[in-house]
Amino acid sequence: MSGDTEGTRLDPWLDSYASRALAMRASEIRALFAVANRPEVVSLAGGMPYIAGLPLEEIADTMRRLIVERGATALQYGSGQGDEELREQIVEVMKLEGIHAHPDDVVVTTGSQQAVDLVTTIFINPGDVVIVEAPSYVGALGVFRAHEADVVHVPMDEDGLIPESLDETITRLKAAGKRVKFLYTVPNFHNPAGVTLSLERRPKIVEIARRHGVLILEDNPYGLLGFDSEPLPAMRSLSEDGVIYLGSFSKTFAPGFRVGWAVAPHAVREKLVLASEAAILCPSNASQMAISSYLAHHDWLGQIKSFRVQYRERRDAIIEALEEHIPAATWTVPAGGFYTWVRLPEGLDAKSMLPRAVTARVAYVPGTAFYMDGRGADHMRLSFCYPTPERIREGVRRLAGVVDAEMELVKIFGTGTDRGGETVSFPSPDVA
Amino acid sequence: MSGDTEGTRLDPWLDSYASRALAMRASEIRALFAVANRPEVVSLAGGMPYIAGLPLEEIADTMRRLIVERGATALQYGSGQGDEELREQIVEVMKLEGIHAHPDDVVVTTGSQQAVDLVTTIFINPGDVVIVEAPSYVGALGVFRAHEADVVHVPMDEDGLIPESLDETITRLKAAGKRVKFLYTVPNFHNPAGVTLSLERRPKIVEIARRHGVLILEDNPYGLLGFDSEPLPAMRSLSEDGVIYLGSFSKTFAPGFRVGWAVAPHAVREKLVLASEAAILCPSNASQMAISSYLAHHDWLGQIKSFRVQYRERRDAIIEALEEHIPAATWTVPAGGFYTWVRLPEGLDAKSMLPRAVTARVAYVPGTAFYMDGRGADHMRLSFCYPTPERIREGVRRLAGVVDAEMELVKIFGTGTDRGGETVSFPSPDVA
Repeated sequence: MSGDTEGTRLDPWLDSYASRALAMRASEIRALFAVANRPEVVSLAGGMPYIAGLPLEEIADTMRRLIVERGATALQYGSGQGDEELREQIVEVMKLEGIHAHPDDVVVTTGSQQAVDLVTTIFINPGDVVIVEAPSYVGALGVFRAHEADVVHVPMDEDGLIPESLDETITRLKAAGKRVKFLYTVPNFHNPAGVTLSLERRPKIVEIARRHGVLILEDNPYGLLGFDSEPLPAMRSLSEDGVIYLGSFSKTFAPGFRVGWAVAPHAVREKLVLASEAAILCPSNASQMAISSYLAHHDWLGQIKSFRVQYRERRDAIIEALEEHIPAATWTVPAGGFYTWVRLPEGLDAKSMLPRAVTARVAYVPGTAFYMDGRGADHMRLSFCYPTPERIREGVRRLAGVVDAEMELVKIFGTGTDRGGETVSFPSPDVA
Repeated sequence: MSGDTEGTRLDPWLDSYASRALAMRASEIRALFAVANRPEVVSLAGGMPYIAGLPLEEIADTMRRLIVERGATALQYGSGQGDEELREQIVEVMKLEGIHAHPDDVVVTTGSQQAVDLVTTIFINPGDVVIVEAPSYVGALGVFRAHEADVVHVPMDEDGLIPESLDETITRLKAAGKRVKFLYTVPNFHNPAGVTLSLERRPKIVEIARRHGVLILEDNPYGLLGFDSEPLPAMRSLSEDGVIYLGSFSKTFAPGFRVGWAVAPHAVREKLVLASEAAILCPSNASQMAISSYLAHHDWLGQIKSFRVQYRERRDAIIEALEEHIPAATWTVPAGGFYTWVRLPEGLDAKSMLPRAVTARVAYVPGTAFYMDGRGADHMRLSFCYPTPERIREGVRRLAGVVDAEMELVKIFGTGTDRGGETVSFPSPDVA
C-alpha cells in the first residue's frame, strides 16, 4: 500500500543491509494515516497533545529573551548528558512523584523515545527477552523489534500489570533458558490501555523484578496528567538500583522540542551518556534551554492543571459518546492521560474496519499495533487528547455508523473476517 | 581517571549489558577536557563554531515570530522524515555543491551525527567492515565501534583519500572473505586532517566503490566553508545510487538546534526514516522550523561568507604562529573548515604530553583519537574555529613551550615515551 515492497525490489543495496534492517518495513496503515490527517477526518488516532492550550505569546517572548541573552550558549554544542540547569529542574519535577534523585543521575534525551532506544541499545543482544504489557506502547515495540529482541507480553487488568502473571512468565522464560533483560512498563494512564498500576501492586512488581534480576524500565510520560487525584509514587521511588525511570516534557508541555530524560543507576547512566553521544553527540541546547526557561518563568504546574481540566472534559466527552452511540462495545475509563482502549463487539476486526472508518471520516489505531504476536484485532485505541469535545462526539457518532454496518455484515456472513496478520511495525508520530 | 572503572565494578547490572555496551567506556581524556574548558585555558581542542558571529537579535526576533505565528505546529510532533519546507530548502542549499535532489530524498536528523548512526544501524552487522580515512572523524569512529564494526583505515595525502590504496584495501579485504559495507569519508576540509579530496580523484573514488559494490557515506559539514574558492562538486553529484550524502547546519549556522540531514537512494531513505522513527520518533519541529525561518528571512549565504572571512583569518593566525613558534613540527594548511593536523617532532607523544599542555593552559586533541588501531600518537589536531586570532597565537606560544620542554626530555632520555594504547572511545561534544 505504501509502495515499500516495490521500492525494496528495486533496491541496489538490498544485499548490504544489516539483519536488523530486514525487519524494518513501513506499517500498512501508514498510507491510511496520510488520509486520516486531512482536516475533514476526526482523528482519534494520534497522541498529539492539545498545544493550542499553551500561552504561545508568552513562550515566544521567553524564546526571544533566551536567544538575545544566552544565544552564544543556546546555539552552541552542549554536554552529552544534558544541560545542568535543566537536570536540576527535572529533579524538582520528579519530586511530585516521590522520586529523590541527583542531577548527576539524569540523562537528557531527544524525547523519551530516544531513552527507550538507548536503554535497549546497551542491554539487548538479538534474542534477549523484553517483557511488556499486553498491550504495550507501539513506539517502544518498534525499538525492541529494531534491536531484534524477543518481546513477551504479560496480561493486565483494570489495576495494570498483574504481578502473579509477571512472576510466572519470568519463571517460565528463565526455565526455558531465555535471558530476560528488562520489563518495559507504562504504569500511569497506560498507552494504549488507559489503566493505571495500583498503589498496592507497585512494590510487588519491584520485588518480583528484583528477585529475578530483571531491570524495570518505567516509562512515565502521563503521570502528572491525572484527572481525579494526585500522582502515585513512581516505582523508581521504591527502588533506585532496580529501575530506570523515563520522563518527558512532550505531554506536560510540548513535544516539538523533543526533550525527555532518563534517570538510571550510576553505572548504567554512564553507559547511556556514551550511547547517546554516539547516537546524537549531544541533545539540543536550544531545546533544553527553551524548556528550562519555560519552567523558570512560567506557571508550569498551573499549566498542567489546566491541561488536566481540558483532558478530563475530553475524556468525559468520549466516554459519554461511547455509552450513547456504541453500547455494544466495552472500554476502559482512564483516570488520566490520553487514551481509552475499546473492545469491539464480537466478530468485528478493528484493522479490516479501519479503511471504512477513514472513508466515514474518523480514524483510530487498531489494537494489532500494540502487540508483537498478532493479537489485538478485537480492540482499538481511541485518543481524546487532540480534538475538541464536540469533534470527539462527532467522531464517535461516525465510528458508531461504521460499527453498526460491520455488525450487520457479521450477522449476515458470520464472524469469518480476517484476523491477526501484520502489526504496526514501527512507531510513527501519528500514533505517539 | 574518570572513575568509570570503579563505577563498573560496583554495577549491579554488569552481567546484563549487550555485547556492544561492553566496548563503551569513557575516553581517558574526557576528565582532562573538563579542565580544558576552563576560561583560562586556550582550547584548540573543540570543533565549536564561532557562534558570536551570528546576528543574535535578529535570530531572536525570528524565533519569537515563529512561535507566535506557527507555534501550534512548531511545538507539536512532526513527520519522521522531517519538515517538508525545510527539506525543500535543503535541496536548494545542496545545489551549491552540484547536487540535484528531490525533497523526498532528504531525511532530517538530529545533527549529522544521528545520520551516521542511522546509516550504520541499517547496514552494519557486527564484524562488517567500514572503511575510513587515516585519520578519521572521532565521532563517526564512536558510532562504528558502538555497532561492533571492523574499521579499516586507508591512507590519505595532501589531495585526500588515495584511490589506489582504497582499491587495494577493498580487494584485499574481499579476498579475505570480509563484508565491506561502506566507505565513510569527509571529502572537504577533513576532520582532523585538514585536507580536501581533489577534483580529479572524486570520480575515481566513486568508480572504485561502484566496481566493488561498496556504498559511499559522504559526510560534508564543512563544504561551504572554503577560504579561497567555490565549493567542489560533491561525490553525490556524480552518483545518485552509490552515495549517501550527509549535510549539517551545525557549522554553517549553529549546532545548538541539532539539525543535519541525509540524502539517500530511495529504498535506503525509506529505511533511514523507519530507523529514525524507532530512535527518536521525529526530529524537533521547533528546531527545524527555526532553521527554516532563518534560511527564509536572513541572508544565510552572506553569513557563510562572513564566517569564511573569520575562519580564514584564524587559519592564517594558527599557521603563522606554528611557523614562528613550533618550526620543528609539520602541519597541513587547510583551504577551509576548522582544523590543522600537526605532526610533532620525532619522539614526542601527543597523548602523554596532553596533561602537561593543559597545565600550561592550552588544549588539543591527540591524534590517537582519530584512529581505531592505536596509531596517531605522533599527531595532534588543532582547531582554529573558536578562539580569537589573538588567543590562537597565545595558545600556540604556550604549546611551543610544552613542545620545547618535551624535546629537551627526548634529547636526554631518548624516544622511549609511551606510545599507542587507548584511543578516544566515544565522540564527545568537546571534539566535535
